Amino acid sequence: MNNVCILGAGSTKYGKLDESIIEIALNASVDAIESAGISPHDIQAGYISNVFGVADKQVHMAPVIMSNLGISHVPGLTIESACGSGSVMFREAYANVRAGFYDCILALGVEKITHTGTNQSTTLFSYCSDVFYEGGMGASFPGLFASIARSYMTKFKADEEDLARVAVKNHENGLLNPKAHMRKRITVDDVLNSPVVASPLKLYDCCPFSDGASAVILCSEDFAKKSGKPYIQVIGSGRGGSPAAVQGRKDIDTIPATVAAANQAYKMAGITPKDIDFAEVHDCFTIAEIIDIEDLGFFQKGKAAKAIREGATTRKGKIPINPSGGLKSKGHPIGATGVGQVVEVFEQFTGKAGERTIKDAQIALTHNFGATGASAAVHIFKKVN
Amino acid sequence: MNNVCILGAGSTKYGKLDESIIEIALNASVDAIESAGISPHDIQAGYISNVFGVADKQVHMAPVIMSNLGISHVPGLTIESACGSGSVMFREAYANVRAGFYDCILALGVEKITHTGTNQSTTLFSYCSDVFYEGGMGASFPGLFASIARSYMTKFKADEEDLARVAVKNHENGLLNPKAHMRKRITVDDVLNSPVVASPLKLYDCCPFSDGASAVILCSEDFAKKSGKPYIQVIGSGRGGSPAAVQGRKDIDTIPATVAAANQAYKMAGITPKDIDFAEVHDCFTIAEIIDIEDLGFFQKGKAAKAIREGATTRKGKIPINPSGGLKSKGHPIGATGVGQVVEVFEQFTGKAGERTIKDAQIALTHNFGATGASAAVHIFKKVN
Repeated sequence: MNNVCILGAGSTKYGKLDESIIEIALNASVDAIESAGISPHDIQAGYISNVFGVADKQVHMAPVIMSNLGISHVPGLTIESACGSGSVMFREAYANVRAGFYDCILALGVEKITHTGTNQSTTLFSYCSDVFYEGGMGASFPGLFASIARSYMTKFKADEEDLARVAVKNHENGLLNPKAHMRKRITVDDVLNSPVVASPLKLYDCCPFSDGASAVILCSEDFAKKSGKPYIQVIGSGRGGSPAAVQGRKDIDTIPATVAAANQAYKMAGITPKDIDFAEVHDCFTIAEIIDIEDLGFFQKGKAAKAIREGATTRKGKIPINPSGGLKSKGHPIGATGVGQVVEVFEQFTGKAGERTIKDAQIALTHNFGATGASAAVHIFKKVN
Repeated sequence: MNNVCILGAGSTKYGKLDESIIEIALNASVDAIESAGISPHDIQAGYISNVFGVADKQVHMAPVIMSNLGISHVPGLTIESACGSGSVMFREAYANVRAGFYDCILALGVEKITHTGTNQSTTLFSYCSDVFYEGGMGASFPGLFASIARSYMTKFKADEEDLARVAVKNHENGLLNPKAHMRKRITVDDVLNSPVVASPLKLYDCCPFSDGASAVILCSEDFAKKSGKPYIQVIGSGRGGSPAAVQGRKDIDTIPATVAAANQAYKMAGITPKDIDFAEVHDCFTIAEIIDIEDLGFFQKGKAAKAIREGATTRKGKIPINPSGGLKSKGHPIGATGVGQVVEVFEQFTGKAGERTIKDAQIALTHNFGATGASAAVHIFKKVN
């Protein structure tokens, strides 16, 4: 089995973009290729993650992207796993390099959705739920996460300010990220006073709909070493599943897919949560980040809200969470999000994260899920000094 | 590396189906699981191929399907590569078993599209082309394949009767397939007298829009042997890419992705085209089958039409093509098609193909592509006696 490395990374700005989905995808791809110092001809396969290509009238994107890169002979595919598409696709690309099927893969996530408007985007996103029990019954994601938030707050005596603090911290981080969608400092009061979307979640508890693309170059360590360029290692990978509908879960304050994926990844890396120096986690809603960081083992169940209150998850805290700004501030182009997390780790570990650099970090974790956590993937990365 | 086997297979009828996309998917999945004689709990991953889940308002299907099978913890994903989604997904499932990441995978292809009507289906399908150069300019697939047919006919002195003979032969085979969409004997005159869709292609030169699902159980040979059930081996796998838009190709009478995928698969299997006893190939239009069987090396370029005239591709011919009825008669639920081809090979090699059984066949090939061949995958299977 090959050691798998990331040799290059690139990303468009996340936000409302006017280019076609293919142009957005190409911009991130070219950035990743240039960052790796390779030629497109070094790429042996194109792994793409995307959910709603239909919204920009282009599916079957891999051949179009490969053709535009001048490498039409290179095989590709698109992987979808709702908002977790990027990490699930990354896992497949990782597996193919690890097994030696390919030496060098372009892993690209892309989404273009904002042009459809908030109503149509919300409707499309609801197709990612268990439609028979949820979307088709009128339960869209803000409502489902509101149920989760209400349960958590009741059981663990957390309040709306605890949720708000997640948003405030992530916006603070996003201010330092030139690619972030929402670069705006906010206060707890701003969150509490923003319009209610689905009680107890207010507008500022919710991540935005975003367009954008992120891409990384995965390769074997032999390939990376020969390049002479800086690279990072993937040392753990895990996947998990949960009952698709929230109503099918015994306990809605935890996401089984996250727990399973994290356990696999920690085991493969031979480490424990204590060894993680920072993490990019799936904060589609503020409550999600609170549950994530417990499920990932950074805090005991029910203890995360208190830890956040004490500053444990800020850039200088015990375990910095979402230094990129997370989905909340960096944005959430759903097919790209999981790849964008890897871009952040690459930039952190290769001296490209500027002011948001986490000091002395050596090991980082990415966590990304689909829908209310019906699918999830966790990856662990190591800085190569 | 593990030897990879197929231990079970199942399929719904292809055609116009009234159930939801999830019910269709479950019907094929349960058939495959029962055919393999395993429990759902033996399944370690769910690989799904689908293109337009959006049309039935359900994407992120893997968690829903796994939850309905009672194995919500099992990770899954959806793979899309237009009309080649099934074989491209199969390739990923194959790679994961081959590398030892999983011992037993449910590989399921599904599509539900007929309820959208012919106009909307044609529009959605055009999103699989290179939309900038093709779909967006009004070039849908019948028109693109008509251009290919015109070029082939001019260059190689083939005529419309040569195209028609492909349809007649595949309908003859489909008559014997209880799962086929179009079970109707047709004549060359029927094809020639059917309405023109895009000259020289008439209605009966085109495969139908179909709903349906097909599923197979992939496993390591150790797992297959322990089961005590009949199984077949996967002995070759290849992927390829072509310029996405037809206009980007030097020669439109050949599909580069097919040639590359076939060469890889033959090389891995250590065989040549002469060793193949029958093949399931991608006959979305009659011209496609003619080009496929040349690109796969069964006939020299420009010679397939004459060979078909002489009966070489019938069930008792030198190289039977599409004994299942192919896309033309069996039908083309685009996410399922590539998996359905594997179902046919499994049934042929395990005594379940009834009257359409190819006598003494030991080695078979499946070939499936996306769009006009922008992406393709080829697999080779061996009977285990």
